[in-house]
Amino acid sequence: MHSVQLNAFGKPWEVAETVTIPDSGAPGVGEIVIDMEFSPINPSDLVLMRGLYGVKPKLPAPVGTEGVARVTKVGSGVAEIREGDRVLFPRGTSTWQTRSKVKADGLFALPAGADPQQLSMLMVNPPTAYLLLTEYVSLKKGDWVIQSAGNSGVGRAVIAIAKQMGVHTVSVVRRPELVDELKKLGADVVLVEGPDLAKRVAEATGKAKIMLALDSVGGPGLMSLNDCLANGGTLVAYGVMSGGPGPFFTAPNIFRDLTLKGFWLLNWFNKSPPARVVEVQKKMAGWIADGTIFTPVEATYPLIESAAAISHAAKGTGKILFKGS
Amino acid sequence: MHSVQLNAFGKPWEVAETVTIPDSGAPGVGEIVIDMEFSPINPSDLVLMRGLYGVKPKLPAPVGTEGVARVTKVGSGVAEIREGDRVLFPRGTSTWQTRSKVKADGLFALPAGADPQQLSMLMVNPPTAYLLLTEYVSLKKGDWVIQSAGNSGVGRAVIAIAKQMGVHTVSVVRRPELVDELKKLGADVVLVEGPDLAKRVAEATGKAKIMLALDSVGGPGLMSLNDCLANGGTLVAYGVMSGGPGPFFTAPNIFRDLTLKGFWLLNWFNKSPPARVVEVQKKMAGWIADGTIFTPVEATYPLIESAAAISHAAKGTGKILFKGS
Repeated sequence: MHSVQLNAFGKPWEVAETVTIPDSGAPGVGEIVIDMEFSPINPSDLVLMRGLYGVKPKLPAPVGTEGVARVTKVGSGVAEIREGDRVLFPRGTSTWQTRSKVKADGLFALPAGADPQQLSMLMVNPPTAYLLLTEYVSLKKGDWVIQSAGNSGVGRAVIAIAKQMGVHTVSVVRRPELVDELKKLGADVVLVEGPDLAKRVAEATGKAKIMLALDSVGGPGLMSLNDCLANGGTLVAYGVMSGGPGPFFTAPNIFRDLTLKGFWLLNWFNKSPPARVVEVQKKMAGWIADGTIFTPVEATYPLIESAAAISHAAKGTGKILFKGS
Repeated sequence: MHSVQLNAFGKPWEVAETVTIPDSGAPGVGEIVIDMEFSPINPSDLVLMRGLYGVKPKLPAPVGTEGVARVTKVGSGVAEIREGDRVLFPRGTSTWQTRSKVKADGLFALPAGADPQQLSMLMVNPPTAYLLLTEYVSLKKGDWVIQSAGNSGVGRAVIAIAKQMGVHTVSVVRRPELVDELKKLGADVVLVEGPDLAKRVAEATGKAKIMLALDSVGGPGLMSLNDCLANGGTLVAYGVMSGGPGPFFTAPNIFRDLTLKGFWLLNWFNKSPPARVVEVQKKMAGWIADGTIFTPVEATYPLIESAAAISHAAKGTGKILFKGS
């Protein structure tokens, strides 16, 4: 039995280690024991390890935000879950761990035919993309949105869900080789970050009035993304992958009536009724099962190789998953 | 007859000059001729001269945004204005000019007993303060707001109008000698900018939950002002006196659900029915006449001394007015 433990805040690949833990024991009333199958290393996990997240755990702390697991033992009083079912980790569980004893409340059996690697990435990125696209600006078919980090997990889900909604996407990426990859995924316009972004966006979209911009990077790119908005538009920040502040000028907000808002999935979880959370998760599970949402996986690592896995994830070249066995 | 003319965008005191202009001639139908009494040099005028404003006039261009004038000639078809009345300059008129021929539409005779220097500052700052305090966050008696540049024209109006509303103010200033001056004006808490602002604000207000922050500076102070907001709060930017970008980190917006919006009085003028504009202006005239709103004047200059006047205004030490005669 292994668990990845955070010992300090700093460079993610230096501050975590894999430790041995005792077995979880038998499940109590309303509990189940689950064995992790896959659990991703998300950008927000790296932000947390750097000490820049919205909450700071008391150290040492277990890590990992989401994942998919197989139910191996079912306690008494659990009606809806059976041994052998595949379930999401409940929210608030540290998922980079071989075996966990958890409450069965709010869990449901995932579609049997869906790819477990894809399901392990259900709980954070797809709902984030879905809520970003639906909770801030009322988008109609034919409207445009723009986003930074189009190749991130959320970015890919934004492209896929926007396509479902009939909304066009401009995705900004750092590396030219991502352009074709994202276009194959259904992205309408993919541009490499750099000077004159607003001008290039206007050219590529036929001067579309873009009312929604989604940013998960912050830092130096924030201003140029903001500049791509039409008057009255809204930028929703939901990540800080750049790791720190960047220059920002409020003049466009003032003179062009732009709004900047922040989205944090944890705030949404906390304020939403449990039934709404399950409704959104089941919608995402359906989109994963039918292939609407798909995130390529670059590599999987066993928990024992946490330093290599986290290092690899921190490079930002693709999605890295821990695997349970 | 003189007029201040902008020849280029740059340092305000280097790019404007006073030129001689011909007399405006007789008023046509619906027109009046007005002689400028007082017209302030506003921060937004300096921003415009630097080329950083929301609109850039074609050069050379006359300058000046607001002022008070005496009606010297009345054309036919003008019912509500008489010779000798004191009126505001109509919106869109360049006010740093001895004599102007303007349309009488939307003008009204100002209260006869009110100080003309104070009335010359009616159209921009008091409505800005009033709208900032009433259009974004629903404030109740006993609530707190925080603002940068508490000693600016808008800042002083915010203090006065908030006091009228029973709302407490935290004003951040650059110079310690302003603390007592603003407190005499009715400011509840006045702090000098610097490290640990949020901590000092919490101490001074008894950890008040501040839901509205007002910023006219931008630049390096923006982040620390944002940090003073309670979760779910809104920062409204309405000026860029710092002249350029400052570091900004979106993490607090994301994790603490903060919103950043921009306010520009010109947008408000453009979207508001004329009757609403006059209603707000008359409310402000009443508050000037009864002394609720008062802005100290540091110096007045004739139009012929425009370079000295603008230089003085750019120091930011107090309000500078042009005087007509």
